Amino acid sequence: MNAEKIPDIIIGRLPVYLRALQRLADKGIQTTSSQELGEIVGISAAQIRKDISQFGEFGKQGTGYSIPFLVERLRDILKVNGSWDVVIVGMGDMGHALARYNGFGNRGFHISMVFDNDPKKIGQKAGDFEILDTTGMAEKIKGHKIKVAMLTVPAVAAQEMADQLVKAGVKAILNYAPISLNVPEDVRVQYIDPVTHLQRMTYYL
Amino acid sequence: MNAEKIPDIIIGRLPVYLRALQRLADKGIQTTSSQELGEIVGISAAQIRKDISQFGEFGKQGTGYSIPFLVERLRDILKVNGSWDVVIVGMGDMGHALARYNGFGNRGFHISMVFDNDPKKIGQKAGDFEILDTTGMAEKIKGHKIKVAMLTVPAVAAQEMADQLVKAGVKAILNYAPISLNVPEDVRVQYIDPVTHLQRMTYYL
Repeated sequence: MNAEKIPDIIIGRLPVYLRALQRLADKGIQTTSSQELGEIVGISAAQIRKDISQFGEFGKQGTGYSIPFLVERLRDILKVNGSWDVVIVGMGDMGHALARYNGFGNRGFHISMVFDNDPKKIGQKAGDFEILDTTGMAEKIKGHKIKVAMLTVPAVAAQEMADQLVKAGVKAILNYAPISLNVPEDVRVQYIDPVTHLQRMTYYL
Repeated sequence: MNAEKIPDIIIGRLPVYLRALQRLADKGIQTTSSQELGEIVGISAAQIRKDISQFGEFGKQGTGYSIPFLVERLRDILKVNGSWDVVIVGMGDMGHALARYNGFGNRGFHISMVFDNDPKKIGQKAGDFEILDTTGMAEKIKGHKIKVAMLTVPAVAAQEMADQLVKAGVKAILNYAPISLNVPEDVRVQYIDPVTHLQRMTYYL
């Protein structure tokens, strides 16, 4: 397996497969097929077989995939068999929603610290967390060797906060601000913007 | 232009181009190139030229794209030159964050009604909206001919609520619940799940 040669578009589908497989596992189901998985996630069975075969031999003709085995392998491949510490920067509505979201823990992530620059918010509670000052954020992130951040500040502040995160050693930023961030090549950014998803659907209406 | 033949993956990139172009327009910039646009959105200039050429002849060698013209065309293509009424179902943290989000209006969407099934929430305010009872939701949505919904209920309730939305005539669902929804072929679903985005990045760490 040569990780660097797998197209990012395939990597992007693996978390979707993993989520579906984990839900089947939660129901006590032990095996599945590319057909069944395809119906759940809305991707063709052929595509699923092709994607999964990139990472080695899974499943056998006629017997299907062992769910626990495939879950384990996908968690290995995506490096979410442990737990990544994550910081949230920006404690508006979205930051609060994420701080209280309970879907991270069993999927490889753990909110570690939350930050804002508003003196009225600093020191307040958000879920289980005390909101920390963004002044001094870089040192705290560096000190804890945190590599993953969620950025939920307003668009005007996003690039400056991203720069601070990059300086602090963060290598993966999930950006909720509706702007494209400039980051060095070794830093990954994923965007969550509800409007782009809505616009992708209105095309078909 | 044969709309049905444009691959969905290209349609998915158009809202990203549109967002970047609108931000350039907001700064008063009148023309851009595929190189400049590519740097902003992190997609190759060649890919951008290829994507945009699917919809006709835009821009000229050497002079670049007219931003107002391209914005107008993309808004036409994506059908966001008007304003779509949208409902939010599920007024937890995420529903509240979306109800107060001010980034919909100038991009083709308008929150019209918000719903929850919790008697303690029904009748309360969320941003400018009164929270309505999900009982009777289908009639209200049908009455207003609303086609677009954002679903922010817990995973266990998501399929049932999606079924009600489909019955009410909704054709586009933005799903924040971490499950895959079963809907008829003529209904589009897009998923927003922060964990799948995070997992897509940890692969590279």
